[in-house]
Amino acid sequence: MARWQPNAKGRLGEAAMELYAERGYEQTTVGEIAERAGLTARTFFRHFADKREVLFAGSEALGPAIQAAVAAAPPTAMDGVTAALDAVAERIGGDRDFSLRRQRVIDATPELQERELIKLARLAGVLRAALREQGVPDPEAALAAETGLAILRVGFERWLTEPDERPLAAVLREAGERLGALLARA
Amino acid sequence: MARWQPNAKGRLGEAAMELYAERGYEQTTVGEIAERAGLTARTFFRHFADKREVLFAGSEALGPAIQAAVAAAPPTAMDGVTAALDAVAERIGGDRDFSLRRQRVIDATPELQERELIKLARLAGVLRAALREQGVPDPEAALAAETGLAILRVGFERWLTEPDERPLAAVLREAGERLGALLARA
Repeated sequence: MARWQPNAKGRLGEAAMELYAERGYEQTTVGEIAERAGLTARTFFRHFADKREVLFAGSEALGPAIQAAVAAAPPTAMDGVTAALDAVAERIGGDRDFSLRRQRVIDATPELQERELIKLARLAGVLRAALREQGVPDPEAALAAETGLAILRVGFERWLTEPDERPLAAVLREAGERLGALLARA
Repeated sequence: MARWQPNAKGRLGEAAMELYAERGYEQTTVGEIAERAGLTARTFFRHFADKREVLFAGSEALGPAIQAAVAAAPPTAMDGVTAALDAVAERIGGDRDFSLRRQRVIDATPELQERELIKLARLAGVLRAALREQGVPDPEAALAAETGLAILRVGFERWLTEPDERPLAAVLREAGERLGALLARA
């Protein structure tokens, strides 16, 4: 096997996604992923900490992206939320096909659903702290952050399931507007 | 030891809460809880499935309570959310001192925080399904349900931390109004 493997990370990720879909996440081993990619387990571990990271790589970057976006936005709760959602959309809205396949694996695996919940709850905490930094007091900062995550959850699901692909940022903005209309009617 | 133990469940719960606060949840065993209560482990397991259930007993009833409240409310998204929050407040708003002690144990234990997140996510799912049953379409049903849980999370925290105790239902309603005002300004 050649020492230099072109796009090893991409091939490993693709092999993992195929196997998760075919056999299920829990039934797939790192050895099988590496084999499918024509690489070794050692190479796998050079790119991913474990088989879960194939699905969650990149999520650590969302917290800092949210912080930076809120810090650069006008210092109001909803401007911060809008900026945070735009920043998240820019990072996770690039490849709907990958996101759809990923979502199917997560929906089929309770352990991964819990992981995803925890990730989103952490992001709500980051967003709340970033809004506080901007001078937004609690409970407004907490309410805005939790609502931002509600918009993200619902809008992301909608983005994945709509027949025609629209930019994720646009779907999130629309979800926010629909929520505003709902609460205005209340 | 007497065969008939007056209020065994209450004594076990109190002993568990004391030990969780003193030693930490993870370091406490069922045997120690029973001993502190002057009862046997066998008696413990007659009342609780495990030491976690001391903290989560009663949460299974929240889903059916939400369903019933939404079914009895006017069939709009926000009427359903308000009815659901009132029903939850009625069930978990009765004993702030217990809730405060419980929250401290949960905040100190990552495993329990995850459990709580999962519980709340399930309740969002129940609320969304109940709103759909009422004829509220998605994404409105999903947005309203997620927002209802956002109000519950933030309002519950506020209820626990305010110096003066107000009824939980009132704190939740106020949180909902503040959120409406936030979104109206956006």
